[in-house]
Amino acid sequence: MYEALKQAAYEANLKLPAAKLCLATWGNASQADRQAGVMAIKPSGVDYAAMKPEDMVIVSLSTGEVLEGGLRPSSDTDTHLELYRAFPNIGGVVHTHSRWATIFAQAGRDIPALGTTHADTFYGPVPCAPALTEEQINSAYETNTGLVLAACCKEHYESIPAGLVKCHGPFTWGASADKALENAIILEEVAMMAWHSIQLGAVPVDDFLLDKHYFRKHGPGAYYGQK
Amino acid sequence: MYEALKQAAYEANLKLPAAKLCLATWGNASQADRQAGVMAIKPSGVDYAAMKPEDMVIVSLSTGEVLEGGLRPSSDTDTHLELYRAFPNIGGVVHTHSRWATIFAQAGRDIPALGTTHADTFYGPVPCAPALTEEQINSAYETNTGLVLAACCKEHYESIPAGLVKCHGPFTWGASADKALENAIILEEVAMMAWHSIQLGAVPVDDFLLDKHYFRKHGPGAYYGQK
Amino acid sequence: MYEALKQAAYEANLKLPAAKLCLATWGNASQADRQAGVMAIKPSGVDYAAMKPEDMVIVSLSTGEVLEGGLRPSSDTDTHLELYRAFPNIGGVVHTHSRWATIFAQAGRDIPALGTTHADTFYGPVPCAPALTEEQINSAYETNTGLVLAACCKEHYESIPAGLVKCHGPFTWGASADKALENAIILEEVAMMAWHSIQLGAVPVDDFLLDKHYFRKHGPGAYYGQK
Amino acid sequence: MYEALKQAAYEANLKLPAAKLCLATWGNASQADRQAGVMAIKPSGVDYAAMKPEDMVIVSLSTGEVLEGGLRPSSDTDTHLELYRAFPNIGGVVHTHSRWATIFAQAGRDIPALGTTHADTFYGPVPCAPALTEEQINSAYETNTGLVLAACCKEHYESIPAGLVKCHGPFTWGASADKALENAIILEEVAMMAWHSIQLGAVPVDDFLLDKHYFRKHGPGAYYGQK
Repeated sequence: MYEALKQAAYEANLKLPAAKLCLATWGNASQADRQAGVMAIKPSGVDYAAMKPEDMVIVSLSTGEVLEGGLRPSSDTDTHLELYRAFPNIGGVVHTHSRWATIFAQAGRDIPALGTTHADTFYGPVPCAPALTEEQINSAYETNTGLVLAACCKEHYESIPAGLVKCHGPFTWGASADKALENAIILEEVAMMAWHSIQLGAVPVDDFLLDKHYFRKHGPGAYYGQK
Repeated sequence: MYEALKQAAYEANLKLPAAKLCLATWGNASQADRQAGVMAIKPSGVDYAAMKPEDMVIVSLSTGEVLEGGLRPSSDTDTHLELYRAFPNIGGVVHTHSRWATIFAQAGRDIPALGTTHADTFYGPVPCAPALTEEQINSAYETNTGLVLAACCKEHYESIPAGLVKCHGPFTWGASADKALENAIILEEVAMMAWHSIQLGAVPVDDFLLDKHYFRKHGPGAYYGQK
Repeated sequence: MYEALKQAAYEANLKLPAAKLCLATWGNASQADRQAGVMAIKPSGVDYAAMKPEDMVIVSLSTGEVLEGGLRPSSDTDTHLELYRAFPNIGGVVHTHSRWATIFAQAGRDIPALGTTHADTFYGPVPCAPALTEEQINSAYETNTGLVLAACCKEHYESIPAGLVKCHGPFTWGASADKALENAIILEEVAMMAWHSIQLGAVPVDDFLLDKHYFRKHGPGAYYGQK
Repeated sequence: MYEALKQAAYEANLKLPAAKLCLATWGNASQADRQAGVMAIKPSGVDYAAMKPEDMVIVSLSTGEVLEGGLRPSSDTDTHLELYRAFPNIGGVVHTHSRWATIFAQAGRDIPALGTTHADTFYGPVPCAPALTEEQINSAYETNTGLVLAACCKEHYESIPAGLVKCHGPFTWGASADKALENAIILEEVAMMAWHSIQLGAVPVDDFLLDKHYFRKHGPGAYYGQK
């Protein structure tokens, strides 16, 4: 079952190394079927090159139970689940250790909105969630990672579809795994430019420029692209 | 009509991702036919890989009207138009969010002339235009972007065929879309080197070195290349 | 003799330029056969592209004598030998001048554990060994390089399978040459991110986060990957 | 005539873009035939991809006269000539605007010897020559560039086969164009690492480490590589 869902998750996972967002097996993508109440996610620690669509693991969004698949799901499965639970409109989640976003995460800093490249996709700074406490780390670590990140991002999860786990790395989301992947690629690009702009003394964009660019591409008044 | 013009614009647009000057659909090139009073420009939000020469949109340089094409022109069309109106001798315009030029734009800083690589193409610092006001952003944004940039660059637009829109990114121009693209590639290279040279304490080149290198390649006394 | 051992060392050496860990001939990998008391190592100064499996040189782990091979072994052979002697459980060693790890080595600084990417592989900072004295450099240089590095890393060589030779570059090790190579690739990635995170003010991760991530992937309680 | 010489110069020139040392036509290599008293050098402003071996221009080392070739020689020809005249033992010269070496040139700073990667090839800092005066720039610019660079590098041109022209870029040399190219590649690598090491507070290597590494690879006591 869920062949189309597995295929979509599989393809997004394959694009992670192709987009140079991860080394080794350090990234995972999932896609949800909200009606069926499940997600398809990468198996843990499996090389992208060796992976097949049928290796994707089907997990219940409500219980976290593995419903289909002979392999263990990603070790980050519980974090994905918390994001699907907290953000009702999303259909895909991507996690990577992409270099520039991870650098901000390691420094515990938000990625500030320093230009229109950022504003075209993210309607404000991409937040770095607070550090987990020792207790949160020592029990149900991956679930707590998702809860802390979701709490930090919930208010603006639709207009800022990304967040950083402190000392860890970025998560992005979207209508599908493919859209979450696109957001991960853009996040990496704006993080790289933000890092270097900060060294030249850049400050965040004016609110009216942020508004202009975000709403040029999103919402009822958007006029970027084709009808 | 305008097949050759569309082909030239098309080819320059295809070179944008090939030259690694843009992610996704974040760059556009146009070429003008001054006699016909039109330009051919990339359609908005269309993937380079899927684009065909006949997708280029023909726009009137004087009225901004779409004269040919089934797709919406680039959202930056009005900015291109203002540059063609202000700079009478140019035949091509390129806009990208290339990393290093955008970093300077985000910091609101000119790209200083720190060496002969810069001086070979740009006869002085590549200016970052002043920020648009809230009013300029909220009405006719793309037109105002072009007006502000053109005002900043007009005096030296032939000898410095590039400028930065603050918090946004670079525009370059030239005799054709292909020449504008070449200037975009060189701008990116000199911006990368300028960023790192600044961190080592570099200061702008002497005027006589700037003169020597610029005029070695441009104008009646040029002796670089073949006759 | 030792065909399988030579093949394993050969393949790991070929991956050094493929993984962009070295220019020219600036990297070498060896693999040991502990039962036979030998290692196979790259010949000195030979291009990777021209190298054949049978060019690998077989060297005695105890005496350092060349037992097989028509070519001189790597000039770093004695350093490899000291690491095998000091670290009883390892089966492979890799040395490179990879950019980011070498940058830390040149600055004489440890690579700090600033995030979970680091903690997933290295259970603490990757140390930079103290500088060799003039005497240590002027006699038995390569042996002394190994002795000083081994002394610095011995206590945690299993949980931190890497170390930096001051003003020189990184060595990594592992159960096989291939595992040592994997550690070299990861070291380079975490060094790149550490360099940039430091510029943003990052500080080392909490011990409990280091514990969580390291032991999520290593030891009896590991739950990353497949059973 | 000079087919073999032209072929050698041609091949070294083709490797410049392959080694990512130059954009556009911004690099040139020459090779000398000391017995014949000539060099073969790249024609000015010709694309590498379109160039043929017979396009190399043969120039007299003593008079600078073009002896063979239908194209103008590189605009940097007179600089090459001065280096051949000042450095009697060299057979090849390479000039590029490679990024990291040019960054140091733009800052007017020597590339310091911060590690063994540098010491393996360059026996001390790679010097940045003093700026040319206005007079030196305004008459016989390329000749003066060579004279100033040669004066700066002459004392150690064999052990440090590279130098930086201030605000311009690097020149390297060697026994052949191919060896000069190899030195250009290594220079770029050590410049990149030096830039980043400086930001971490690195200081130059001890003299005895410089000696050890340089003489491990060069001179009568060298023991790197094969006999």
